[in-house]
Amino acid sequence: MNYSVVTYILGWIMELEAGFMLLAAGVGALYREKEGLVYLIVALCTAAAGAIIVHKKPKDMNFYLKEGFVTVALSWIIMSAIGALPFFITGDIPHYIDALFETVSGFTTTGASILPAVEPLAKCNLFWRSFSHWIGGMGVIVFLLAVLPLAGGTNMNLMKAESPGPAVGKLVPKVKKTASITYRIYIAMTLLEVILLAAGGMSIFGAVCNSMGTAGTGGFAITNAGFAGESAYAQWVVGVFMILFGVNFNVYYLLTIKRFREAAKHEEARTYLIIILVSTAIIVWNVRDMFSTLGETIRHAFFQVGSVITTTGFASTDFNGWPETSRTILVMLMFCGACAGSTGGGIKVSRFIILIKTFFKEITSYLHPRSVKKINLEGKPVEHETVRATNVYIVTFVVIFATSLFLVSFENKDLITNFTAVAATINNIGPGLSMVGPVENFAHFTYFSKLVFIFDMLVGRLELFPILLLFCPSIWIRKKEKRA
Amino acid sequence: MNYSVVTYILGWIMELEAGFMLLAAGVGALYREKEGLVYLIVALCTAAAGAIIVHKKPKDMNFYLKEGFVTVALSWIIMSAIGALPFFITGDIPHYIDALFETVSGFTTTGASILPAVEPLAKCNLFWRSFSHWIGGMGVIVFLLAVLPLAGGTNMNLMKAESPGPAVGKLVPKVKKTASITYRIYIAMTLLEVILLAAGGMSIFGAVCNSMGTAGTGGFAITNAGFAGESAYAQWVVGVFMILFGVNFNVYYLLTIKRFREAAKHEEARTYLIIILVSTAIIVWNVRDMFSTLGETIRHAFFQVGSVITTTGFASTDFNGWPETSRTILVMLMFCGACAGSTGGGIKVSRFIILIKTFFKEITSYLHPRSVKKINLEGKPVEHETVRATNVYIVTFVVIFATSLFLVSFENKDLITNFTAVAATINNIGPGLSMVGPVENFAHFTYFSKLVFIFDMLVGRLELFPILLLFCPSIWIRKKEKRA
Repeated sequence: MNYSVVTYILGWIMELEAGFMLLAAGVGALYREKEGLVYLIVALCTAAAGAIIVHKKPKDMNFYLKEGFVTVALSWIIMSAIGALPFFITGDIPHYIDALFETVSGFTTTGASILPAVEPLAKCNLFWRSFSHWIGGMGVIVFLLAVLPLAGGTNMNLMKAESPGPAVGKLVPKVKKTASITYRIYIAMTLLEVILLAAGGMSIFGAVCNSMGTAGTGGFAITNAGFAGESAYAQWVVGVFMILFGVNFNVYYLLTIKRFREAAKHEEARTYLIIILVSTAIIVWNVRDMFSTLGETIRHAFFQVGSVITTTGFASTDFNGWPETSRTILVMLMFCGACAGSTGGGIKVSRFIILIKTFFKEITSYLHPRSVKKINLEGKPVEHETVRATNVYIVTFVVIFATSLFLVSFENKDLITNFTAVAATINNIGPGLSMVGPVENFAHFTYFSKLVFIFDMLVGRLELFPILLLFCPSIWIRKKEKRA
Repeated sequence: MNYSVVTYILGWIMELEAGFMLLAAGVGALYREKEGLVYLIVALCTAAAGAIIVHKKPKDMNFYLKEGFVTVALSWIIMSAIGALPFFITGDIPHYIDALFETVSGFTTTGASILPAVEPLAKCNLFWRSFSHWIGGMGVIVFLLAVLPLAGGTNMNLMKAESPGPAVGKLVPKVKKTASITYRIYIAMTLLEVILLAAGGMSIFGAVCNSMGTAGTGGFAITNAGFAGESAYAQWVVGVFMILFGVNFNVYYLLTIKRFREAAKHEEARTYLIIILVSTAIIVWNVRDMFSTLGETIRHAFFQVGSVITTTGFASTDFNGWPETSRTILVMLMFCGACAGSTGGGIKVSRFIILIKTFFKEITSYLHPRSVKKINLEGKPVEHETVRATNVYIVTFVVIFATSLFLVSFENKDLITNFTAVAATINNIGPGLSMVGPVENFAHFTYFSKLVFIFDMLVGRLELFPILLLFCPSIWIRKKEKRA
């Protein structure tokens, strides 16, 4: 393996994070909080350490998929480990594992919290929590690709490892350009949401934090009441934007280059919207007696469906108290997830489209054994390799899920709590049901279970394999090799 | 499709079932129950109807996989529909859907019951319930293959559709011989269990019924208390035999032809036994405070693990009250299932072996992109087709599972009840947790949910595709075709 290039990129990641932290330090200065100083100091130390690493540019820039996976996995771990320091040093989260849980939850856009109340936090800490959602949503590597000049193969293998979905869809042939277009759309949409929320009377700080939480499909709230305490207008805006950020960004790219018909025909986005509509309709019917007006019922059903399918995790009401049909639908949506190529987590709609089509192909093959039919997605035949990878993905997902469920079961909490806690972390949602419902939090778990959840959040955000690869001993054994 | 040969085989299935019913009529005569007459009459009518069908042997005996699937699916549905009649006519189960549920539960070796108490039932009805487990365990088609002379292709395609597991393992080149050897082993082992149970003081009737329930990995009890009311000796015997009937029958065949070393090296059987040992050990540790002696703890842990992994569903104690770790393990074992080529249900150990190996192969492929490695099972490379089919199986399983969960959620029962009820029926186990725990039953569900469970039991027993194929319209459209 090419260790020097991996280290080199990790150095750049540290530089980037230092830059991000300066923003949090700025927020601290704005509100005259002494906690802002902590961000400044951590940022400077990180920047200095990063500078030492990137000082020496590696000669050999050869970079394969293996290096891509390892780099991405290590980037996220280092980012989280450093990002947790301010919470810990400021004393707002006294135990480092808790701080790490909170930071991983932030970067992976999970939004599960170990804090029973968030209002006592310093403003810069609140900002850092929400900002981590925004950074993690689109991916820090993608950001790096947009700014850092690297060799062609390097780019693609890095993007492949961080991007969500069964196959990487490059918008334009050049990876650097793709990354930069994606980030421009991301910034524009986030700003639009900030403006709309502020126009509705939300404070600028609240509008910025909530917009970043929506954009990254994160879910950290900045008040104890979360979105239950916001106006109906704010709930509608955030509800719509959550769903918009769960759409495959290819669609927005097609819109910007005026290929409207192609955008409207996007199979994954259409399926995603249909799932949202149908789920909302069933839940509206199921909870019709719980709210006073139909408008309120629709708003809460829509908000919750949007929040869960995009794996954001905001809650406008305590859906843990909803009847069983609605709860079951929400649990299913937890696994469904948003579109590939969006900021949302979960298994992804396109994977389910591929799986359902594989299933029908199987049935057809019994009827017409000699027919050879390829599966199509977005009008193009799906590579056999993608179908296979999707199947392996599901299997791996099930194995990790079952193992996690088993490991946290030792706490003797009820099965619904354990099951939905694992589902909410591995799918990067945040709240589950029962003891991890929307008005609860993860504080009551042991540190052992919290470490399991930290693993699940990372493994879920990076689509399983990058993190798993770190556990292969051969990755760490330096041996003579001509090429990886 | 070749309808005439399908109908012809269905006719023979009816003849067979009539024969089986005569046995139940005999039990009725033995105990001088008027219910025995019902069995006699139903048997005679079924035999007459079957005779009309098999009277005309079809000219074209061509038979493809499609015909195999449809024949097997229809056989099981017809067997259940007719088998439910005596329960309904004798009035022991007053509603036909309940009677159908009970019969499907019997034939599919699920063992889930809608009866709050079984002791009021006529002896011949009790016998018929347990006997249906025994028939369904090894499969009625396999029985038919052992006695009915059919063309070569027919045999294999029928066996493929009914046999559990990712790939059909023929013991000997001839299907007829394979079927007959399998049934001889099955009968011998069942008789051995009857003798051991009777030697321990159980009544002959009880020993026969319980042995048939064990052999088919069914789970219908003949007393209200089930195995909680039996002696420790009987619990040990049944515990061991449940596990024996969950072993791949290839192992027993190897033993009969004295290839001991090969039998001992059987990968699936070894994995299966290791899972049982590890699960039992963890549960023993987890429930150590619930029983007075270590021996009792081990016995109950062993019995429950054996009962759930083989999908039998007998209970020596109410495991619904066990701590969460044990409950979680049992839920996982529900999905694991027994060995392929055994009478047990579930997803099957060999499928998991294939999946885990696929997973490791995937990891390796990232490390060494150019290595081409085949997965091995039982020392032989697994066909690419089998790996693919296994993946499709899992995906289809998940889809059916989720749909069923959604459909039964409308009753507004708790998620654990719904989840484990679906798991217990689709995996052919019987009891689940919460409201379908071992001391509960399925009577409280609506008829709609019961129909969902009936579907799940059939689809689970026949490994998904035969039943699903019935829903393809093109199966039912008779069109001009040269060959299927």
